[in-house]
Amino acid sequence: MAQEVIDILTSNIDTLWVIDCAILVFIMQAGFMCMETGLSRHKNSINVALKNAADFGVSVVIFWIFGFGLMFGTSYNGFFGTDLFFFKTDKAEYMTYFVFQAMFVATAATIISGAVAERMKFNGYLIMTVLATGIIYPIVGHWAWSSSYLSKYDAVNQLLLSTGQVKTTGWLSDLGFVDFAGSTIVHSVGGWIALAAVIILGPRIGKYSDANKGKFTGSSFPLAVLGTLILWFGWFGFNGGSNGAMDEAVPLILINTFLAAAFGLLTGLGISYLRFKKPDPFYIILGPLAGLVAITAGCNSMTSVTSIFVGVVGAIIAIIVNEVLNKFEIDDVVGAVPVHLAAGVWGTLAVGLFSDLSILDTGLDRFSQIKIQLIGIIAIGAFTFISSFTILSLFNKFYPLRVSPVQEELGLNIAEHNAVSIEHDLISILDKQSESGDLKIRGPQDPFTAGGVIGLYYNKLMSKLRD
Amino acid sequence: MAQEVIDILTSNIDTLWVIDCAILVFIMQAGFMCMETGLSRHKNSINVALKNAADFGVSVVIFWIFGFGLMFGTSYNGFFGTDLFFFKTDKAEYMTYFVFQAMFVATAATIISGAVAERMKFNGYLIMTVLATGIIYPIVGHWAWSSSYLSKYDAVNQLLLSTGQVKTTGWLSDLGFVDFAGSTIVHSVGGWIALAAVIILGPRIGKYSDANKGKFTGSSFPLAVLGTLILWFGWFGFNGGSNGAMDEAVPLILINTFLAAAFGLLTGLGISYLRFKKPDPFYIILGPLAGLVAITAGCNSMTSVTSIFVGVVGAIIAIIVNEVLNKFEIDDVVGAVPVHLAAGVWGTLAVGLFSDLSILDTGLDRFSQIKIQLIGIIAIGAFTFISSFTILSLFNKFYPLRVSPVQEELGLNIAEHNAVSIEHDLISILDKQSESGDLKIRGPQDPFTAGGVIGLYYNKLMSKLRD
Amino acid sequence: MAQEVIDILTSNIDTLWVIDCAILVFIMQAGFMCMETGLSRHKNSINVALKNAADFGVSVVIFWIFGFGLMFGTSYNGFFGTDLFFFKTDKAEYMTYFVFQAMFVATAATIISGAVAERMKFNGYLIMTVLATGIIYPIVGHWAWSSSYLSKYDAVNQLLLSTGQVKTTGWLSDLGFVDFAGSTIVHSVGGWIALAAVIILGPRIGKYSDANKGKFTGSSFPLAVLGTLILWFGWFGFNGGSNGAMDEAVPLILINTFLAAAFGLLTGLGISYLRFKKPDPFYIILGPLAGLVAITAGCNSMTSVTSIFVGVVGAIIAIIVNEVLNKFEIDDVVGAVPVHLAAGVWGTLAVGLFSDLSILDTGLDRFSQIKIQLIGIIAIGAFTFISSFTILSLFNKFYPLRVSPVQEELGLNIAEHNAVSIEHDLISILDKQSESGDLKIRGPQDPFTAGGVIGLYYNKLMSKLRD
Repeated sequence: MAQEVIDILTSNIDTLWVIDCAILVFIMQAGFMCMETGLSRHKNSINVALKNAADFGVSVVIFWIFGFGLMFGTSYNGFFGTDLFFFKTDKAEYMTYFVFQAMFVATAATIISGAVAERMKFNGYLIMTVLATGIIYPIVGHWAWSSSYLSKYDAVNQLLLSTGQVKTTGWLSDLGFVDFAGSTIVHSVGGWIALAAVIILGPRIGKYSDANKGKFTGSSFPLAVLGTLILWFGWFGFNGGSNGAMDEAVPLILINTFLAAAFGLLTGLGISYLRFKKPDPFYIILGPLAGLVAITAGCNSMTSVTSIFVGVVGAIIAIIVNEVLNKFEIDDVVGAVPVHLAAGVWGTLAVGLFSDLSILDTGLDRFSQIKIQLIGIIAIGAFTFISSFTILSLFNKFYPLRVSPVQEELGLNIAEHNAVSIEHDLISILDKQSESGDLKIRGPQDPFTAGGVIGLYYNKLMSKLRD
Repeated sequence: MAQEVIDILTSNIDTLWVIDCAILVFIMQAGFMCMETGLSRHKNSINVALKNAADFGVSVVIFWIFGFGLMFGTSYNGFFGTDLFFFKTDKAEYMTYFVFQAMFVATAATIISGAVAERMKFNGYLIMTVLATGIIYPIVGHWAWSSSYLSKYDAVNQLLLSTGQVKTTGWLSDLGFVDFAGSTIVHSVGGWIALAAVIILGPRIGKYSDANKGKFTGSSFPLAVLGTLILWFGWFGFNGGSNGAMDEAVPLILINTFLAAAFGLLTGLGISYLRFKKPDPFYIILGPLAGLVAITAGCNSMTSVTSIFVGVVGAIIAIIVNEVLNKFEIDDVVGAVPVHLAAGVWGTLAVGLFSDLSILDTGLDRFSQIKIQLIGIIAIGAFTFISSFTILSLFNKFYPLRVSPVQEELGLNIAEHNAVSIEHDLISILDKQSESGDLKIRGPQDPFTAGGVIGLYYNKLMSKLRD
Repeated sequence: MAQEVIDILTSNIDTLWVIDCAILVFIMQAGFMCMETGLSRHKNSINVALKNAADFGVSVVIFWIFGFGLMFGTSYNGFFGTDLFFFKTDKAEYMTYFVFQAMFVATAATIISGAVAERMKFNGYLIMTVLATGIIYPIVGHWAWSSSYLSKYDAVNQLLLSTGQVKTTGWLSDLGFVDFAGSTIVHSVGGWIALAAVIILGPRIGKYSDANKGKFTGSSFPLAVLGTLILWFGWFGFNGGSNGAMDEAVPLILINTFLAAAFGLLTGLGISYLRFKKPDPFYIILGPLAGLVAITAGCNSMTSVTSIFVGVVGAIIAIIVNEVLNKFEIDDVVGAVPVHLAAGVWGTLAVGLFSDLSILDTGLDRFSQIKIQLIGIIAIGAFTFISSFTILSLFNKFYPLRVSPVQEELGLNIAEHNAVSIEHDLISILDKQSESGDLKIRGPQDPFTAGGVIGLYYNKLMSKLRD
């Protein structure tokens, strides 16, 4: 009896931790929303915010219907799962696993929304979300992570495994590829799809014109900083929960996570001092996020000093890639490709270079581990980029993913949602007065909205002109 | 000894979970604040935000003084509790229960603040909060939920119960009424009071005028989306913590919660495509919130497929009720009645229709359970609506709950708090220059505030006119 | 075996709780960011937000390098620690302790950022962060808190302690000074440094001019309320996690925490009704935060009724100190000194006055405890204020900590980060048209940004003038 009780207690503690972490991963959705909305221009802010809410609905529903099965179902030769559709089980621990994975999948989608902001159609974005979270992410996830579910939870597979009769897990994990919490599976996958999408969409009108010099003004930088801090907050759950249990490994995972992020932040700050002699707001956001993405793959298998190095290099790489993209006029509104793709690739490689092999427990030597990490990075990158580029290009032929130039100029808030922001009120007031041509006509008496203020100002000015 | 240690460990795990959840429920206060502020007009944003902070203080204090006692004290014939005022106990587990319940009570109040926004007096709102959280909520809460405390924690009641001598719990729970986490007790109660209040207050000036066509522009839609996501985040604690323990039931509760919300979101999105051919921002907020409210009553006793159905229907009902209210020119600023009342009623009924009777454990058959659910919905609805409508109407006679039309035009930020927002600065600048009549006079040299920008613009324009 | 298993389970539960709390403390960083950004003027909002992100990076890195060692290392005569630099350990429980403490240290820094907002250089702020979190906080932290680590975790010290050979812990804790979660160590330390800094910096230009009457308009009050609620949310972790374990003490800690805050809110509300006949937004923020700071020192050792009294008095003191500071024209933008210093001192004294001596377990009688609390308050206050005032004054001589008046007028967003907000776009448009002097020239066709709206309005007006 005693052992049984202890097992239940242990299981409840582990469940509690993983669920706490899943809830923290959920709030990253709000983090991405704030960050991406804050960095997008005002006229598109509502569109960006809605994309970041809607993709959660879409991706979770799809994941429940077939994504989870494709990712963790019985493997077809290590390439994709073939059952567990419409996820249903009686076992509480399987459900816990599903909760955590369902929160993860939304992250992969929402990474992309920032890159394509301000010109991708809402519908096009939903289509891309289906592609990303229903097909690409589950398939590459199967390659690398299916064993974590199959070996632990699937009784049939365990039986088969014990007889050695079938190959039941993803081909990459069979090779020994390690990506603890998803530098590659989640972040670089999101980044690759984002890269494909922004190449297909092209840059925003005017972004690289001489007048703008590559700079657009986001709607609210403080909102972007809030988003960054919420993401950091959620990342404790993202990396901590990937441990799957509350045990001695957790504290080091968290220390490595925040040290990599903190040093990433200082790296961004330092580089901006070197380059601009000023602390650059965007770099202060890029830095910690790149550090977080980079340490995600190896946070459980590295020393803190190594984690710091990984975070610092991640931030440097992200900043360099950001500049390179701008040089080639590839317009990634929020730096999703530098942060999630570039730092994600680096972090996954760093596992091969620096991780404690005994913790990885793949039976590989250092050189082989590096090789396998490279194979995983390349295989997942090639599959993700090529398939998403191909499918999105095809789609784009028949159903353009980008809004029309007029809509883009109008802003997607109006063009896509008919959702006026406060500035829109101004126009209707001005229009009325302007078209009348009668200087005696006055604006509405609501002096404490932005619209009303302008109206009031207009009235006064008109009075003065008449005098 | 062993059993004792195991009991302590189990109790600590349960306490940890319930406290985690209580903290999550607390942050829903911020979620409501953001959502309601974002959907209210700029000139009232500070007022709305302050109401959503102040009501937490008021409701928690009142709950500690007498609300908790009224809700969970020794029952007077099943109608209300009669002791446990100024809550105090030496038992840690009772305290945990109090923490969780105290976070709940604030939710019921803050639901209302959004409905009555932009025209209800701050003082009137505080009075209504006292009514809602000090009297109505604890009484109906006693009817349905007192047994959860009394049977578990109250030694005297347990003794009396064992002798069968007294009726110690709420009359609705004695009948077998089930509302797991409060679709009715929390959400529909908030919704009924909101309905009474908005009928008494009447619509905002101009809301249903021909010019506005029922549309006012909220101060910040991204803030409203942030609020929705924070609410969703907190709801994991709202439903999960209602289990009272960390056990095998928790993962399913969470899965049902987020699936109902996600499908609610897709439902809102789908209906807006059907009606408007565009994704409507407001529907994308209504959808998931209605799904969450609807699943709250039965999240522990339904399959995931049923939960999805409940979420979808909840979203449909909320959208229909929203349109009906607008048709009758009942002005609910944030959709509190459609979401919390309509979807809450549906969710409570759905428990009777679909829940696993063995989990409900009321000893009733399907038909009787449905009947009892209806009795509970009607009894609580009638009591809440009639008492709040009567009391608020009486109050309104002697102390009008609505601000004056001039104050409403000015906006409650100024009228109630003398709290200027940035736009107010503009006016003082313009006033000075306008009244002077001297075109040579220039505005202040602070070109990077909105006020200063207009001043600068004004200066330049004046210069040009003089030339 | 059984005992061993139980120890592991207990340790895992405690770790889970402390880590949950550490994560909650992290999000207080976002709370401070929102609160301080919201209360600062628009032209400085980006600067404030960035300071609140950057200081986390700086303080955590420094704490890892030497702060933790200075605070918890082997004591040099009770004054400061001398080892544990570049924190590294194999023991998971030590790591957990480090995680929690690392989140704490950032709080002490970020308190200051609000007080000095709108005129302190970004670089100067970073220097002050290094001083605060690298030197002052760890040293006074050693005085009062080093025993908590040393006695529990340091095997060598335990051995030495048992022989009674050396004095190994901070001198204040040896005397019996008690500050449970840091009313003094964290909050008043932040407050004292803030006071030194604002005296050195002087008030913002125009703050106490006749025109402004001490009132500047913050960029967004709702954002400040959001920040307050996030802080409150995080405080559950701040106080709850300071218990170091999940046991019977936790629920009371949380109840005392939110009751003190709720009564603090009502106190702020009540005073504002008495003084202004209106609910004052700033007081509604000051009240609960002062209540939270005040109860932090004694939340585990007081009854709820006492906690309420401590919260109420804390709010009153904070409001009085706020007025006194304004009278002396000491310009603290967000009220950091009233809230964190004044209420923190009161809360620490209240431990001596009211706490259950058996819980404090210092072996002191009431009078002696009060005396020691006063010694601690004075010693830490004097050391912190004098050292920070001296060092910052010296610094200020050679490297002025304040921006130039022109930069201050421009706003730190532009002056320090070249970070334009949306209003800046207006100017470039107006400049172009104004300088050309040609009324036929028109603004850009982007009518749904604030900039574009003004441009459009300008165009229409110019057309009319030409006609």
